Amino acid sequence: MTPYAEMTKDELKMELKALQADYDKFQNLGLNLDMSRGKPCKEQLDLSMGLMDALNSGADLTCEDGTDCRNYGMLTGISEARSLIGDMMENNPEDIIIYGNSSLNVMYDTISRAMTHGILGHIPWGKLDKVKFLCPSPGYDRHFKITEYFGIEMIPVDMTPEGPDMDTVEKLVSEDDAIKGIWCVPKYSNPQGYSYSDNTVRRFARLEPAAPDFRIFWDNAYGIHHLYDDHQDYLIEILAECKRAGHPDLVYKFASTSKVTFPGSGIAAIATSQNNLEDIKLQLKNQTIGHDKVNQLRHVRFFGNIHGMVEHMRKHADIIRPKFEAVEEIFDKNLSGLGIGEWTKPKGGYFISFETLPGCAKNVVAQAKKAGVTMTGAGATWPYGKDPKDTNIRVAPTYPSLADLKVAAELFCICVKIVSIKQLLGE
Amino acid sequence: MTPYAEMTKDELKMELKALQADYDKFQNLGLNLDMSRGKPCKEQLDLSMGLMDALNSGADLTCEDGTDCRNYGMLTGISEARSLIGDMMENNPEDIIIYGNSSLNVMYDTISRAMTHGILGHIPWGKLDKVKFLCPSPGYDRHFKITEYFGIEMIPVDMTPEGPDMDTVEKLVSEDDAIKGIWCVPKYSNPQGYSYSDNTVRRFARLEPAAPDFRIFWDNAYGIHHLYDDHQDYLIEILAECKRAGHPDLVYKFASTSKVTFPGSGIAAIATSQNNLEDIKLQLKNQTIGHDKVNQLRHVRFFGNIHGMVEHMRKHADIIRPKFEAVEEIFDKNLSGLGIGEWTKPKGGYFISFETLPGCAKNVVAQAKKAGVTMTGAGATWPYGKDPKDTNIRVAPTYPSLADLKVAAELFCICVKIVSIKQLLGE
Repeated sequence: MTPYAEMTKDELKMELKALQADYDKFQNLGLNLDMSRGKPCKEQLDLSMGLMDALNSGADLTCEDGTDCRNYGMLTGISEARSLIGDMMENNPEDIIIYGNSSLNVMYDTISRAMTHGILGHIPWGKLDKVKFLCPSPGYDRHFKITEYFGIEMIPVDMTPEGPDMDTVEKLVSEDDAIKGIWCVPKYSNPQGYSYSDNTVRRFARLEPAAPDFRIFWDNAYGIHHLYDDHQDYLIEILAECKRAGHPDLVYKFASTSKVTFPGSGIAAIATSQNNLEDIKLQLKNQTIGHDKVNQLRHVRFFGNIHGMVEHMRKHADIIRPKFEAVEEIFDKNLSGLGIGEWTKPKGGYFISFETLPGCAKNVVAQAKKAGVTMTGAGATWPYGKDPKDTNIRVAPTYPSLADLKVAAELFCICVKIVSIKQLLGE
Repeated sequence: MTPYAEMTKDELKMELKALQADYDKFQNLGLNLDMSRGKPCKEQLDLSMGLMDALNSGADLTCEDGTDCRNYGMLTGISEARSLIGDMMENNPEDIIIYGNSSLNVMYDTISRAMTHGILGHIPWGKLDKVKFLCPSPGYDRHFKITEYFGIEMIPVDMTPEGPDMDTVEKLVSEDDAIKGIWCVPKYSNPQGYSYSDNTVRRFARLEPAAPDFRIFWDNAYGIHHLYDDHQDYLIEILAECKRAGHPDLVYKFASTSKVTFPGSGIAAIATSQNNLEDIKLQLKNQTIGHDKVNQLRHVRFFGNIHGMVEHMRKHADIIRPKFEAVEEIFDKNLSGLGIGEWTKPKGGYFISFETLPGCAKNVVAQAKKAGVTMTGAGATWPYGKDPKDTNIRVAPTYPSLADLKVAAELFCICVKIVSIKQLLGE
């Protein structure tokens, strides 16, 4: 196909006219499709219905260590859940606290605790004039919302296919002791689906931050969320790497089973050094007597062990892989060679990231919305919702049916074309 | 029986000798009994095993409004859970947010939010030089731990059988705008089992605090936890009363099903005014996408409605009422008329409160501990763990078996007698 930039104005106008006709056809379908959030679809949720049978009224709800899961206690979680989630996270059970149903909540609480009480005896962030976070961008909007809520200044750092631009990260954290943290989705990143390279992880573990209470917020949300059996990204385990580098306390690592079993009804966890864990427990014991142990046991009994969980993730992949491939195929067919957009082809996770021509993302999303297809709001993937070049659109292919998704992807391509032509024509 | 205070030194010494012999017999039993916490016993937990069958793999996990409980969303809880908990709390479903598994966690988060972001636009408490809380004492140790953790100065206020000393409460809150809250367990209070009188509740609703962001922290932990069918305390509903008094925003009310189904695996909630709810949601949406809806649905399906829950609470009462009565009987038999202790006879809740002679509580608890019976640490029921007169001991009769409990209560009486005689003898 001829790149749009090489077409004459008249050619572009003709093309636009044809596209408008196509667009109108879609608009007449009265679509109502939601591609805005990384939500599992019904078929994925059905995979975990066995969880509802994992415990019944005849079950013994006693843990291996004799604890009755039905009663109070066990602040850090039952040991068999720490083992299972340890295997999922590639961490020792002793380095883990099992929380409630949401890793986002754990991250929020971690920031909140740092604000009110500081980290390992350092001044509470809330007492400082200025606290800053590095935000590899595009990134996860809900991360950015937490730091924004706490008045933490967010500094975007470019993302590359290898992870965040580490030259910038190293420079900034070593120079500015107001920089207290960095948000990371290190594997199958949100939204690009990039996985941090070995070199990136090694450089993270070897950061020399000016702030002694600087922490890497390592949200390994998609650690086992591969799309392919034979074609997977690997990530160096960060806690071990930090230990090797002599910086054991540098990282908080988060994960959950939200996209393994049921979002909102799974279990979340933090893994970090013993120093950090002791620090956290000093707070946690005031916040709760313990998290939901019955649900922890339910998950353990359902999966049996990590092999059961890996097998389960294969079934997820079988459902969502065709969706990713369909979107990529439609993007390829309609957009490749036109020079008006680029998109990622992740091997796992929940998103495809699309880059429009500068200044087009908001309009593309608006155009799609008008025809009944809701995308993640343009800008959401950047701190403060401000995408400086207005180019990034997060595509979430998992929730709609394959048929709906194909329609939505076709429409999306038309929207990209229309908005790009208008941009090129200066309209 | 002759009051100890009227006995001669020789008589007391002879009595002490006999008591020591009795004590030694108990010590030789090698007891290991825990009366320290308000934990349900195994038989109580067994009552809720049907909860494990309320949802199975064949169940439709769709809410009445069509929401799939298995997926993300519903920040404030599913509507049927808000209805059920609304009935339990005597509040409108619209005035409720359903949280996770722990009302303590909700209270902690409420204080934490006030510290970092303030209440309804007022200055965050963390930015103030001094924040104070009124603490009706004796009270619930975990409440006091939260305020202590946040560096909030705690001011004890006397408890009476009608509730906190309202003359003092009214005077202090109207004079001092650093006083931002008061901890209340208004029904079957922890540890005394007192319920606030109508007059007390009305005076609470009519408080005129100097601080516009003063809130009553109304932890209605034992709202439906009666011991008797025909012999119950009634409590005026505080939200409605605050509304009537023209102070709709004055109160945060908390409750949970922790001692209805499984502690740690139930559902918790806050009920408060629409203004307060909107204020909370501005924060909550950054903290989580939603709480565990599947567990909410599980509770709704298990109970059906409030009648099912009330019926269920009768079964709890049948199990624990004999325990309360056994302790009271043993206390009566061994201690009445001696003038060395007073105890409450609650009609609900989880505790009996015991008042020793001044300066005896710590020693009684230590003496019991040496013979293998663990009570709640003396002092725990007061802010900073400091009982000014060293008189209060919280007795938690629910967890041990009836047989064990009787042994523990007998031993406790011997310990009270021994310590009291030593005190009277000036030893």
